[in-house]
Amino acid sequence: MHTVVRSQSREVVIGPDQPFCIIGERINPTGREAFGEALRAGDLSQVVIDVEEQVALGAHMLDVNMGVPLADEAKLLADAIQLIQEHTDLPICIDSSIVEALEAGLSVYEGKALVNSVTCERERLEQVLPMVKEHGAAIICLTNDETGIPETAAERVEICERLVDIVCGEYEIPIEDMVIDPLAMTVGADPQAVLITLETISSIREQFDLNMTLGGSNVSFGLPGRHALNAAFLAVASHAGLTSAIMDARRAEVVEGCRAADLLLGRDEWATNWIAAHREAQAAAS
Amino acid sequence: MHTVVRSQSREVVIGPDQPFCIIGERINPTGREAFGEALRAGDLSQVVIDVEEQVALGAHMLDVNMGVPLADEAKLLADAIQLIQEHTDLPICIDSSIVEALEAGLSVYEGKALVNSVTCERERLEQVLPMVKEHGAAIICLTNDETGIPETAAERVEICERLVDIVCGEYEIPIEDMVIDPLAMTVGADPQAVLITLETISSIREQFDLNMTLGGSNVSFGLPGRHALNAAFLAVASHAGLTSAIMDARRAEVVEGCRAADLLLGRDEWATNWIAAHREAQAAAS
Repeated sequence: MHTVVRSQSREVVIGPDQPFCIIGERINPTGREAFGEALRAGDLSQVVIDVEEQVALGAHMLDVNMGVPLADEAKLLADAIQLIQEHTDLPICIDSSIVEALEAGLSVYEGKALVNSVTCERERLEQVLPMVKEHGAAIICLTNDETGIPETAAERVEICERLVDIVCGEYEIPIEDMVIDPLAMTVGADPQAVLITLETISSIREQFDLNMTLGGSNVSFGLPGRHALNAAFLAVASHAGLTSAIMDARRAEVVEGCRAADLLLGRDEWATNWIAAHREAQAAAS
Repeated sequence: MHTVVRSQSREVVIGPDQPFCIIGERINPTGREAFGEALRAGDLSQVVIDVEEQVALGAHMLDVNMGVPLADEAKLLADAIQLIQEHTDLPICIDSSIVEALEAGLSVYEGKALVNSVTCERERLEQVLPMVKEHGAAIICLTNDETGIPETAAERVEICERLVDIVCGEYEIPIEDMVIDPLAMTVGADPQAVLITLETISSIREQFDLNMTLGGSNVSFGLPGRHALNAAFLAVASHAGLTSAIMDARRAEVVEGCRAADLLLGRDEWATNWIAAHREAQAAAS
């Protein structure tokens, strides 16, 4: 199954037979105090730097989150998206927990966006899905509901099934426009966390063949050597059936983990992308 | 299932619930002209350097191959093993295609060795298995036979089945002392090569629950960025069910790939090994 997203001039296809879709996570003020301050003051200049850094290593899409406390998130998100569209043709993943901000972002976005995200909570679905449908966007659906994050793969798969019923059945959004988030939690807090995520991914790939994305940096939270952990996780998850991640696209080591998986798993025939990326890295270094 | 190997004073356990077993590949003259020359002249001093470099990053075992053309390989292998035993207590993987060399190596080895290797070829099995049994060693069995390297996973699994019949049935070697090599070929020559290896690993894990090892550097042959490819491959293969690799134990990036997989896959509870390795690396760097 192929999920297609678009900017005005570029199309990105997400699918198990495609290169792993790298969504840059950087444009997000969470944990970035100075960036948050600047955004609150209406200064979006850092956004342009973040765009360039993520484009440099080959991100396929950019996640944009403007969740700054005490700021007009809807306006900030719309402004940021308009600014980003002037600097790159990468499609955008519009990221907010506030429905009005998603709406503002969608209204200025030129293309077919990926909306990040809905949970399987009735109220939230009722707010977000009509908007997604109206704009013809794709939507990331998290496999948790009112009761919290399920501890087992079986429960997450069950939520995925409910999501398919609601998103495609009730709201008649095409199933290829659903991207499931199987939820990646930190392995430092629970030694079984990654195994549960991998089992969820395999099951959803097998039962629904849906495309999937997740937060690729969560697993290593609080641990040393995060990039190596994230790279290994994304390679393993890609083999299990994950098709995309919202991840640190500024770190060569992590991006290489995804590209290596593409090559090893037969999605980069004759190593075309792998060799091109190495030539670019060499050219940039010299 | 646990495969146990030993030196005089150290035991290593290979198994799917154990840390991935890192077997250092370096002590091998293939492709190392100067080393081959030195060995031919009876100079084994480089062997000691190779031991130290591999021990430094945390190899669990050392593969020892003395395959130098026009040299007395049996004598070299026995000498090398005796020398290595003076410098490390890591168990040894005795590696030769010459039966007399394996015999010479086994006769001086103090402990329970891993013998590398037999194929599923009748003549070879008849020569090697009685010797393995006599010495109480463990044995790496390659999933190829007289007809060459099978192109499909199903054929490799079928050979694995024949190997179990012969090694355990005919020769009564304990099944836990069999370590299967599912054969890793280079992805640069065949885009499907790694997928076939991974499918073989999953099937053998599921059907026989045998321990497996393979040459962890083959997949990236001829490509740039080999360490990143090898690291990603070993992490993915570990998740598929591989329990060990004969690999470049001198490259932090590759070793980290295996350790990352251990942590992510629940074989390094509370990141004990991961954090210890990072502290050691920091101490070594300062």
